[in-house]
Amino acid sequence: MADKKMVEEITSMDVDFAQWYTDVVIKAELIDYTSVKGCMVIKPAGYAIWELIQKQLDARFKETGVENVYLPMFIPESLLQKEKDHVEGFAPEVAWVTHGGLQPLAERMCVRPTSETLFCDFYKNDIHSYRDLPKVYNQWCSVVRWEKETRPFLRSREFLWQEGHTAHATAQEAEERTIQMLNVYADFCEQVLAIPVVRGQKTDKEKFAGAVATYTIEALMHDGKALQSGTSHNFGDGFAKAFDIQFADKDNTLKHVHQTSWGMTTRLIGAIIMVHGDNEGLVLPPRVAPTQVCIVPIMQKKEGVLEKAFELKDMLSKNFRVKVDDTDKSPGWKFAEAEMRGYPLRVEIGPKDIEAGKCVICRRDTKEKIEVALDELETKVGELLETIQVEMLERARAHREEHTYVAKDFDEFVKTFNEKAGFVKAMWCGDRACEDTIKEKLSVTSRCMPFKQETLADTCVCCGKPAKKMVYWGRAY
Amino acid sequence: MADKKMVEEITSMDVDFAQWYTDVVIKAELIDYTSVKGCMVIKPAGYAIWELIQKQLDARFKETGVENVYLPMFIPESLLQKEKDHVEGFAPEVAWVTHGGLQPLAERMCVRPTSETLFCDFYKNDIHSYRDLPKVYNQWCSVVRWEKETRPFLRSREFLWQEGHTAHATAQEAEERTIQMLNVYADFCEQVLAIPVVRGQKTDKEKFAGAVATYTIEALMHDGKALQSGTSHNFGDGFAKAFDIQFADKDNTLKHVHQTSWGMTTRLIGAIIMVHGDNEGLVLPPRVAPTQVCIVPIMQKKEGVLEKAFELKDMLSKNFRVKVDDTDKSPGWKFAEAEMRGYPLRVEIGPKDIEAGKCVICRRDTKEKIEVALDELETKVGELLETIQVEMLERARAHREEHTYVAKDFDEFVKTFNEKAGFVKAMWCGDRACEDTIKEKLSVTSRCMPFKQETLADTCVCCGKPAKKMVYWGRAY
Repeated sequence: MADKKMVEEITSMDVDFAQWYTDVVIKAELIDYTSVKGCMVIKPAGYAIWELIQKQLDARFKETGVENVYLPMFIPESLLQKEKDHVEGFAPEVAWVTHGGLQPLAERMCVRPTSETLFCDFYKNDIHSYRDLPKVYNQWCSVVRWEKETRPFLRSREFLWQEGHTAHATAQEAEERTIQMLNVYADFCEQVLAIPVVRGQKTDKEKFAGAVATYTIEALMHDGKALQSGTSHNFGDGFAKAFDIQFADKDNTLKHVHQTSWGMTTRLIGAIIMVHGDNEGLVLPPRVAPTQVCIVPIMQKKEGVLEKAFELKDMLSKNFRVKVDDTDKSPGWKFAEAEMRGYPLRVEIGPKDIEAGKCVICRRDTKEKIEVALDELETKVGELLETIQVEMLERARAHREEHTYVAKDFDEFVKTFNEKAGFVKAMWCGDRACEDTIKEKLSVTSRCMPFKQETLADTCVCCGKPAKKMVYWGRAY
Repeated sequence: MADKKMVEEITSMDVDFAQWYTDVVIKAELIDYTSVKGCMVIKPAGYAIWELIQKQLDARFKETGVENVYLPMFIPESLLQKEKDHVEGFAPEVAWVTHGGLQPLAERMCVRPTSETLFCDFYKNDIHSYRDLPKVYNQWCSVVRWEKETRPFLRSREFLWQEGHTAHATAQEAEERTIQMLNVYADFCEQVLAIPVVRGQKTDKEKFAGAVATYTIEALMHDGKALQSGTSHNFGDGFAKAFDIQFADKDNTLKHVHQTSWGMTTRLIGAIIMVHGDNEGLVLPPRVAPTQVCIVPIMQKKEGVLEKAFELKDMLSKNFRVKVDDTDKSPGWKFAEAEMRGYPLRVEIGPKDIEAGKCVICRRDTKEKIEVALDELETKVGELLETIQVEMLERARAHREEHTYVAKDFDEFVKTFNEKAGFVKAMWCGDRACEDTIKEKLSVTSRCMPFKQETLADTCVCCGKPAKKMVYWGRAY
């Protein structure tokens, strides 16, 4: 019974999904709360996931020509105010620095909530000629937004992210980069995080403050709620005009640059938890699992068992991230802990296994147990990690398909959201009034106008006027 | 003449070293100034150096068991005040956040100048038993110190760094970790940055606010000034007592933990510039050079030249960081630019070279030109990069030895600092009064009491009382 203690302490996701989530982030030791309200400590098990995300996402960025930079964390108030929509969007939720050392500042500064204004101020000095374009810069940093309600990873006052900011000679090039980065995000989510996403465009109501167009990838969590997982914005030349960023083009005329920005955050860790987790805890996709294989020695005090466990670790460590749990806990406790922490594979090895030249591999995602000869272990581990990566994506995609509904009129729309949890596809006339009505009545928002449009009906699901777009609707985190 | 323009715009280091430094950081495009006073943009060429530093230093950390975490950037005022010496050291130079969104905060918070207090607050909740020890955590982040005078990389209001914070069961283990990390820093500086350092202990006057002992590595810049390049602090149980961090030991008694912290910053990039740079610009050690080989095609419009240049690039890119300068600038301009940016090797390839099956390699550090057969290029590049790495360290060490002096009495001490620029080794009685006198009269500070002690004389160089320690003295950045 004691062996099951860790597991029993988690709330079942079917009873209370929010509490299940909190239990997992704490019990899997991903985060800790702090004295700073709304800010968290990202503990080693959580930060190691972020490092694997960073490494693989950064490599994908660099393949497309992105260069990394670092800009200041402070934005003088006058700079924040230069672009009207942008300041209206962010001013209510920034933290203000008013004193440096013992002196009040001549002008107060906010801690960056995002860095469009700083990049514009930089580009204004750095861009003179078409030869200086494009600029395709990115930074990895933390940002601050003074949220009222916070949840670990999903919404915190400070979070880690990357923010790409580019400048281009033409509108077309900017639009192409905006879409290119959205596709980088979508491929990353699917191939690395095993999270399927819907790619599409935000409505004007939901787009980024100051953007001409915002593109998004939307994922469906296990509880049927939607999570915006990455966004890519095309600013046109709006910021360039507000900040006077001009370049001499090949035809010797001065032109304003066209800009984009795009970001992904530690929120992705929340998505991993809520898409793949189960009632035993975290389930990590192999490509972002800091420990891919946990070796649990059985009867480890018997001669040769621990030695064999470490021998297997050394062999597997050439290609995989491996640890041995050689603590003095019981095997049952170790199994429960390995499940809680989401290690994709657990290898059990005891005296009888050693004698028989075999071991047992247990898959975290399916709980399947497989007996393997020790001399085939390395090959089998590689195959299984690949299989798990692929099947986790397939299962998540099947779950999303099962929880994606169609509504053709308002009654059906209301009924679906009252009875089901998931995405609802429905037609929309394009008017903000309908979005406002839907949000007010159902607490549902437009997630995106997907690139893959379908014609489900001829009329708007809300007002009955002629429809212009199919929209994914959902309850959002 | 026009080809030399870039070079001529740099001030000679012999005329004005400070201006030379500023010219190099700007012309080599490492940084840009910003609207935020005392904060800089780290541009791609500068940030890529930091990425190589991070990658290699982080790997060395992890080999010693370090785990990465992330803590909040804000410190509530009451938390900063818990350790008396610490708050006295930092409160005068922090930035204060007083408003979150539109509301004043109940308690103001500073942006972290360093995170001892946050780690203590975290460890207090996370450490209960000897089983939870040691904690060997590190974070990569930015910190803010409201400096009055700033210089790119060397002293800025916001800078990037890593800060390690550890907790141990015994005083001995904490002291061992403090020294271990100092040695990691020293080896890193010497083997990766090709910068020789003196390892030693800070005097009480110069130690970190709240530390029992501070260890340091000190490097000598080309102008004879000293640069503190990394520090490692042993806190004993002082912070643990202030923050009440206790654990149940094996003997079932409650004990306070013993703590350490250690940090290195973007200041290292300043050290690279000032140790290795010359009047043509930056000289980068191969291990932190974002571009190790720059291929310059000669008469690139002739058929086959550019193709050959890119063919060589593809071949070399398997093992090295390589670029081709295929801009429409003249070869002379490209040579000057490659020198300014400090690429360790430049490969020149033109029609005659191609015909003869050879090319010319030029070493940045010595300007030596070497003719190499194309089929030996890959091997030769590998050998040369190794040679450059080794010889840069040797030259820097020889420079330091030539500029390290000995003074046995105060007259000699004063004369040396008036006539020479460098380290002066001299004996010290251990009294702070002598350090104060020396600082007041000569603007010279004790850099460290080196681990390798020598007996140069029996008496203190300042007061003539019996000497206790040999000290390195210097003018510091």
